[in-house]
Amino acid sequence: MIPPSLRVAPDPAAARLTRAVTGRDQTGQPVDLRVVEERPLTIYLNAREIVTAMTIGDYPEWLALGFLVNQGMVRADDTVTGIDYDEEVAAVVVRTAEITDHEAKLARATRTSGCAVGTVFGDMMEGLDGLRLPATPLRVSDLRALSAAINRTPSLYLAVGAIHGTCLCAGPDPIAYFEDVGRHNAVDKLAGWMRAKGVGGADKTLYTTGRLTSEMVIKCATMGIPSLVSRSGFTAWGVDIARQVGLTVIGRMKGTRFVCLSGEERVIWDAE
Amino acid sequence: MIPPSLRVAPDPAAARLTRAVTGRDQTGQPVDLRVVEERPLTIYLNAREIVTAMTIGDYPEWLALGFLVNQGMVRADDTVTGIDYDEEVAAVVVRTAEITDHEAKLARATRTSGCAVGTVFGDMMEGLDGLRLPATPLRVSDLRALSAAINRTPSLYLAVGAIHGTCLCAGPDPIAYFEDVGRHNAVDKLAGWMRAKGVGGADKTLYTTGRLTSEMVIKCATMGIPSLVSRSGFTAWGVDIARQVGLTVIGRMKGTRFVCLSGEERVIWDAE
Repeated sequence: MIPPSLRVAPDPAAARLTRAVTGRDQTGQPVDLRVVEERPLTIYLNAREIVTAMTIGDYPEWLALGFLVNQGMVRADDTVTGIDYDEEVAAVVVRTAEITDHEAKLARATRTSGCAVGTVFGDMMEGLDGLRLPATPLRVSDLRALSAAINRTPSLYLAVGAIHGTCLCAGPDPIAYFEDVGRHNAVDKLAGWMRAKGVGGADKTLYTTGRLTSEMVIKCATMGIPSLVSRSGFTAWGVDIARQVGLTVIGRMKGTRFVCLSGEERVIWDAE
Repeated sequence: MIPPSLRVAPDPAAARLTRAVTGRDQTGQPVDLRVVEERPLTIYLNAREIVTAMTIGDYPEWLALGFLVNQGMVRADDTVTGIDYDEEVAAVVVRTAEITDHEAKLARATRTSGCAVGTVFGDMMEGLDGLRLPATPLRVSDLRALSAAINRTPSLYLAVGAIHGTCLCAGPDPIAYFEDVGRHNAVDKLAGWMRAKGVGGADKTLYTTGRLTSEMVIKCATMGIPSLVSRSGFTAWGVDIARQVGLTVIGRMKGTRFVCLSGEERVIWDAE
């Protein structure tokens, strides 16, 4: 049953997203199963080729926009004038009204030392300077409700497995649920949707199936969402960054159990 | 118990690899746990900065070498003259006797259009042209033995979770077992170890905890290992590439059950 609060949800029946294959099981007997599709998608920012992402291919425009936003390449004050997806060449171009700072930086770096791959990483950390996340409370009872709602929602994960999911939630209600081969692409798709729809993160919770690594924590903070929740575990650096930026981080969430390693002050321990 | 065949195994007790943290559980009670460390490591090929990888930091030299080898940037005929790791600046430089084709390509691409990020992806696929993997048989009984051996080996996964592992195996015996935050870094570390030690892949099996995506399949084939095994699932493109290069791919391996979606001709169905 799809929660009525969900504005966008996975479509496990969509023909383009899975494929039927035949193989053999451990006894050598034929077995049929469905597996998730995976396709390359090259993302451009204006004239610059940025990256080739592997994706199930359901929301290329939001994936591209969200990737660029989350990498700090498209900023809040950049005006996005269009997003053009060309399925034939598996490419998507995000266009802005004016050349972005990132493109200018690439041009300078290229003239001096070639691909400035360190720039992106440094930029992501810089983007956290002075970041203040709101004190939006997080009720344990809401976490239980949203977990249950997500687990009841039809998804590629429930249908075929081998996929990551992320869900933007408001209190106990799932709002936007995305899946992809990579946990980061799923979150980037959500970020693109939020930017395109003008949906903010200040009063929301971000649920992910992926581990709470430095990059996932940075992404959640960049998206302005004060609470990050996962059924998976943590890395030490993810915890450090979360504490540094004041993000509430909850992991190892299984059934009613979880561990909160940062931002405990937001949590309302209202579970029985 | 560490299998006697293992030449390198995880060290879950190593102080640098995990950290004790304190948080709160679902009732608000204090809880102590250990989480895996995650540190940036910038990899250079001679004078070129290539990428910043996130790693637990146990084998930076092998991670760097294996990354470059698996990306096709350091080829079989390149002579590696040294690998210098500087812990203070979290950087590792892999040096070759002569400038590599990859560096030459980057120099050309930089002069024309900036970062040629598409090059790496295209190179990886090109590297598969004409690849022939040996017919080394894969016994189901050996798969069972190696799964059991791996699951009995002390590891960061068993100790703290939130980590991926990979193991190179010969028949039923684990030979080299690596773990890291990312499944690809774990496999790259193994590739670096194999290159450094002169261990070939032709008579081996590659076990991974990660999903069998296009990139994982390409990596295994690039490493010359004819069989790839995982407890996780598949993507359609991973299956396509495996069939294209004649790689045996077994996934969803749990207990005695599994699914083989490619290279069934290598498998000897000798399980009861």
